[in-house]
Amino acid sequence: MILVLKPGAPREQVDELIGRIKTMGLDVHISVGVDTTIIGLVGDTTKLDRLVFSSYDIVQNVLKVTEPFKKANRMFHPDDTIIEIGGRKIGEGHFVIIAGPCSVESEEQIVGIARELKNIGATFLRGGAYKPRTSPYSFQGLGLEGLELLKIARAETGLPIVSEIMSTDVLDRFVEDVDIIQVGARNMQNFVLLRELGRIRKPILLKRGLSATLEEWLMSAEYILSEGNDKVILCERGIRTFETYTRNTLDLSAVPAIKKLSHLPVIVDPSHGTGKSWMVGTMSKAALVAGADGVIIEVHNNPKCALSDGDQSITPSDYAAIFPKIKQLAEIEWKRLEV
Amino acid sequence: MILVLKPGAPREQVDELIGRIKTMGLDVHISVGVDTTIIGLVGDTTKLDRLVFSSYDIVQNVLKVTEPFKKANRMFHPDDTIIEIGGRKIGEGHFVIIAGPCSVESEEQIVGIARELKNIGATFLRGGAYKPRTSPYSFQGLGLEGLELLKIARAETGLPIVSEIMSTDVLDRFVEDVDIIQVGARNMQNFVLLRELGRIRKPILLKRGLSATLEEWLMSAEYILSEGNDKVILCERGIRTFETYTRNTLDLSAVPAIKKLSHLPVIVDPSHGTGKSWMVGTMSKAALVAGADGVIIEVHNNPKCALSDGDQSITPSDYAAIFPKIKQLAEIEWKRLEV
Amino acid sequence: MILVLKPGAPREQVDELIGRIKTMGLDVHISVGVDTTIIGLVGDTTKLDRLVFSSYDIVQNVLKVTEPFKKANRMFHPDDTIIEIGGRKIGEGHFVIIAGPCSVESEEQIVGIARELKNIGATFLRGGAYKPRTSPYSFQGLGLEGLELLKIARAETGLPIVSEIMSTDVLDRFVEDVDIIQVGARNMQNFVLLRELGRIRKPILLKRGLSATLEEWLMSAEYILSEGNDKVILCERGIRTFETYTRNTLDLSAVPAIKKLSHLPVIVDPSHGTGKSWMVGTMSKAALVAGADGVIIEVHNNPKCALSDGDQSITPSDYAAIFPKIKQLAEIEWKRLEV
Amino acid sequence: MILVLKPGAPREQVDELIGRIKTMGLDVHISVGVDTTIIGLVGDTTKLDRLVFSSYDIVQNVLKVTEPFKKANRMFHPDDTIIEIGGRKIGEGHFVIIAGPCSVESEEQIVGIARELKNIGATFLRGGAYKPRTSPYSFQGLGLEGLELLKIARAETGLPIVSEIMSTDVLDRFVEDVDIIQVGARNMQNFVLLRELGRIRKPILLKRGLSATLEEWLMSAEYILSEGNDKVILCERGIRTFETYTRNTLDLSAVPAIKKLSHLPVIVDPSHGTGKSWMVGTMSKAALVAGADGVIIEVHNNPKCALSDGDQSITPSDYAAIFPKIKQLAEIEWKRLEV
Repeated sequence: MILVLKPGAPREQVDELIGRIKTMGLDVHISVGVDTTIIGLVGDTTKLDRLVFSSYDIVQNVLKVTEPFKKANRMFHPDDTIIEIGGRKIGEGHFVIIAGPCSVESEEQIVGIARELKNIGATFLRGGAYKPRTSPYSFQGLGLEGLELLKIARAETGLPIVSEIMSTDVLDRFVEDVDIIQVGARNMQNFVLLRELGRIRKPILLKRGLSATLEEWLMSAEYILSEGNDKVILCERGIRTFETYTRNTLDLSAVPAIKKLSHLPVIVDPSHGTGKSWMVGTMSKAALVAGADGVIIEVHNNPKCALSDGDQSITPSDYAAIFPKIKQLAEIEWKRLEV
Repeated sequence: MILVLKPGAPREQVDELIGRIKTMGLDVHISVGVDTTIIGLVGDTTKLDRLVFSSYDIVQNVLKVTEPFKKANRMFHPDDTIIEIGGRKIGEGHFVIIAGPCSVESEEQIVGIARELKNIGATFLRGGAYKPRTSPYSFQGLGLEGLELLKIARAETGLPIVSEIMSTDVLDRFVEDVDIIQVGARNMQNFVLLRELGRIRKPILLKRGLSATLEEWLMSAEYILSEGNDKVILCERGIRTFETYTRNTLDLSAVPAIKKLSHLPVIVDPSHGTGKSWMVGTMSKAALVAGADGVIIEVHNNPKCALSDGDQSITPSDYAAIFPKIKQLAEIEWKRLEV
Repeated sequence: MILVLKPGAPREQVDELIGRIKTMGLDVHISVGVDTTIIGLVGDTTKLDRLVFSSYDIVQNVLKVTEPFKKANRMFHPDDTIIEIGGRKIGEGHFVIIAGPCSVESEEQIVGIARELKNIGATFLRGGAYKPRTSPYSFQGLGLEGLELLKIARAETGLPIVSEIMSTDVLDRFVEDVDIIQVGARNMQNFVLLRELGRIRKPILLKRGLSATLEEWLMSAEYILSEGNDKVILCERGIRTFETYTRNTLDLSAVPAIKKLSHLPVIVDPSHGTGKSWMVGTMSKAALVAGADGVIIEVHNNPKCALSDGDQSITPSDYAAIFPKIKQLAEIEWKRLEV
Repeated sequence: MILVLKPGAPREQVDELIGRIKTMGLDVHISVGVDTTIIGLVGDTTKLDRLVFSSYDIVQNVLKVTEPFKKANRMFHPDDTIIEIGGRKIGEGHFVIIAGPCSVESEEQIVGIARELKNIGATFLRGGAYKPRTSPYSFQGLGLEGLELLKIARAETGLPIVSEIMSTDVLDRFVEDVDIIQVGARNMQNFVLLRELGRIRKPILLKRGLSATLEEWLMSAEYILSEGNDKVILCERGIRTFETYTRNTLDLSAVPAIKKLSHLPVIVDPSHGTGKSWMVGTMSKAALVAGADGVIIEVHNNPKCALSDGDQSITPSDYAAIFPKIKQLAEIEWKRLEV
């Protein structure tokens, strides 16, 4: 961390500041320029709050030098993390496809879709039992009954299941029933939930918040990692911008960025990212080429009647058309498709 | 809700769509234009998901006509809501000042600040016991001990207390100990929490999410209201934009907007909204003039040593300088200052 | 266009409004719902300003049904536009690579780079003679001398040249010297310039503005098209969002969106879009797979000494490594690489 | 400027970098930390492009210490700039109201509005002769004829006039006819235009771009100032964010920010900033209290028939209701209302 002082900062105030820094167990390097004096903090500043210093009158600017995330940081963990779930791998060249409906609606629906996906080829089955909805009047999911239906679909097809958790009170059931526990964009900074998820040993799929910076997203992963759960999969799902044509703006450059900053696997959700079913195939391909370790795609047997997100769901036959293209690109890009 | 059909939509598909709408208990009005056929849905469409229709091939556009929030809607509740807490009122000309430190740090600190605020003039004392922090390594608040210290400060000064809740597992304690329960920006769409808060009878201070539209914010209020708790106070605290000079962009036009759309009281947080202590006084005044029912201000006896948010906290003596200006403007604007 | 009236709009005011609409040569369809009356405007509303109606007290909402762009609209021009420049085609399966330095700095530099690009493979040579710089103290380009140097590079290599125009006073020289005239993001709504470019017959490369919606971008194209110049190439170059890790947020979903809305060719600029040279190759590939008709890439023989944008420029040897991958993907995607 | 090097940067590359810096006439201060080496650049770095350094492999981060604007910088010009136009002052406690229609439509209209404004009280008359419109099919203004009509209105009322310039070809006419030349948001980075405006001696009203940071805005002012024209008035007019309820998001905290960073006067445009006529009065008052040196308000005698921006224009009688409130607040805030 670097503190840039204001021109003409009084000597005694500078000394007071330096004293404060030293009481924190840090050393200082002072660099006196023509206009500006600069204090470099030497030592472990990861846990320091930059705001503490910016409240000093003589401090003009506080500049961060190192990223505040440690366990998620590629600098301290150069090799890609590979996570294995039910015999499928994700990360470092292993590419996964998570597919399924936004919401679990009935046994017939979820088993039907799961069978079609299994026949075409997919790594994991997704399905929402608990649904975060903007309106209290919208369908909120089947809850625990939805988890039971997912388990039936898994038993029928062998596809491991992915489902979203919204609160800690059902954590035990998720740990028991689900193969990958998803944290939705709106809960990316639900720190109480993240901490609890750090204490279990299930893989966590952590979606990026609607307006989360890459750093904030990695800090949320750090909440999970710092508690001991090192199985975190990141998921870019579009950010909120001024553009309204697409539901969100899918930030594909986040994929190479995360790959540079972190060792964690990162996948892409083109369904929520665009909100348009006809873009899903194209953006899935682009995600793969951008370096993603997988995609998560909404597939519904009858999007017109879907209880949520019909507009962005594709049909199994759309999926069947997209799958071979993903497969072909995976080969070109030397990725192993885990299906 | 209005459905705009694509040019040349086949008759049988239009009929199928109309049939679907009628099974939902709605009536239709059809308007055939030169290029475009339009279907108006007549009936209660509040609980309808517009996405259900946009997945139809023949539907070009789905246009909402009425707002999806009902209980928060001024249209159905023309009079301003006034909430009374410990003899203080908020709403319809009653202006409140909530002040105090970001985090409760010690008895000496919180009681000391509370006394100074009481002497200068303030409506409520704020203080964080549970702190949502971006980093797992930052100070996370004193927890229940923090609540105890707030209660001591309340006993000493008579100021009712405001504190943020982060999860439902401490809800009983908050109901018992706290006078206004705050929901932070990052939990604005923690729907499980909102629903639980709807089942109690304490006033809720609901902060706007970092990238929440006015409609989403009101829908989150609707979660609380729809469960029966009608004491919701909204709080604008800055939104996330491209501008980085200020910590957030304080959206003061949200104040008149909320006043038009809803009957709920709305206050402004200039401390988080700007992130700069030297802007707090100016933006508090602007908030009052823009029509807010109150402000929430971070005050710390030693911002340089604050365990969080030092940069945006003002000192009690800053507060003493701002207070008479707010008071003067309140008189000009015919607002009753509740201190 | 659809006007949604407020509940209980007085009859005489509704009649006055309808009268006004009819004087504009439009017909109306009225649909009376339970709460809401809706007026549909029938006829050519392209040139209507929706704001005219929203100022009526009885009008609650004005909803657009058709896009305001006509000549750029795929609805009225279903076939892809193909533009031919010096024997190279762009659009409908013809993929181009525009490469070269941000700024033309010297004959040695531009000719050197052009030769390397020609050897590796490129469609067009780009080079800035006039540079829009945020600071008046930054290098502003060589001006007309820069155009002369570009012409030398073209003569040496046969690569047609692309350069940015900043004002109409040098339009004649650009028409004479340059093969594709570029309009930069900051001038996307310089309507005087756009109109003049509509009166010439050179291809125009129209970059998307930093905060331009897709519709605004297409409306700027419409300025050029409406004056008679139908050779417009759109270029996505990243939009401004809250994320600061990348210089801009490259909106790759804009590519399929533009393809759906318009018949015009669309290319992608991964150099400005990300601001990071190490992302350029990856995002170029993703752009191709997303359906782009080309990419524009900054290549500099010595990025460290580049007079502008060194951070996002790649070296010719980087380019030599990227080129075969683009070529391979072009084949997979059935695109003809125009080199 | 500060360069943060990557851990383990090879000595010879560090030396090469230092050599490069010294050839630029700068001195260096080197600070060696545990993980990180930091190079501080000593000397005038205003004209340096930070990107030049970030292209070095060994450079992890380039941190700016001083703002890149000089003439607009309060640090080098501590006193507020006061601009005098036709006997009216703006800046340092002098508050102005610029009012008038978005577009000049006819002599009757502009003279009529001007007279009403004069009677109520206003500092300047605004009126658009050249209108930047998103659509080429919208009304584009009366052009030079509009300027003539404005001059008639000025002659009738004595109100100096403000009008927007869109290109340099009519600059002579604007210098001759207009009292304050406005640069619109879309031209804020039309650097050719800015430079020409720097060479004249008329006051320039420089609107903030839709997605311009405070620094970019001040850099655009710097273009004008650096050419010798020191009469620049800044105008906050709302920025583009995700929120769509208001036309733009009026960033009132930009007012105290600009006051801190610069000595230039800053005014606020609540009409464009909100796009809602019913918010104009409230936000004008908030702007004054936030420290603005004036407001610019759209007033039209018949907003329903306005050829542009009817939705955000207020009527003269609305204006008559707002004016005394502004006057009252100006007194409270010790500002001299220049009418």
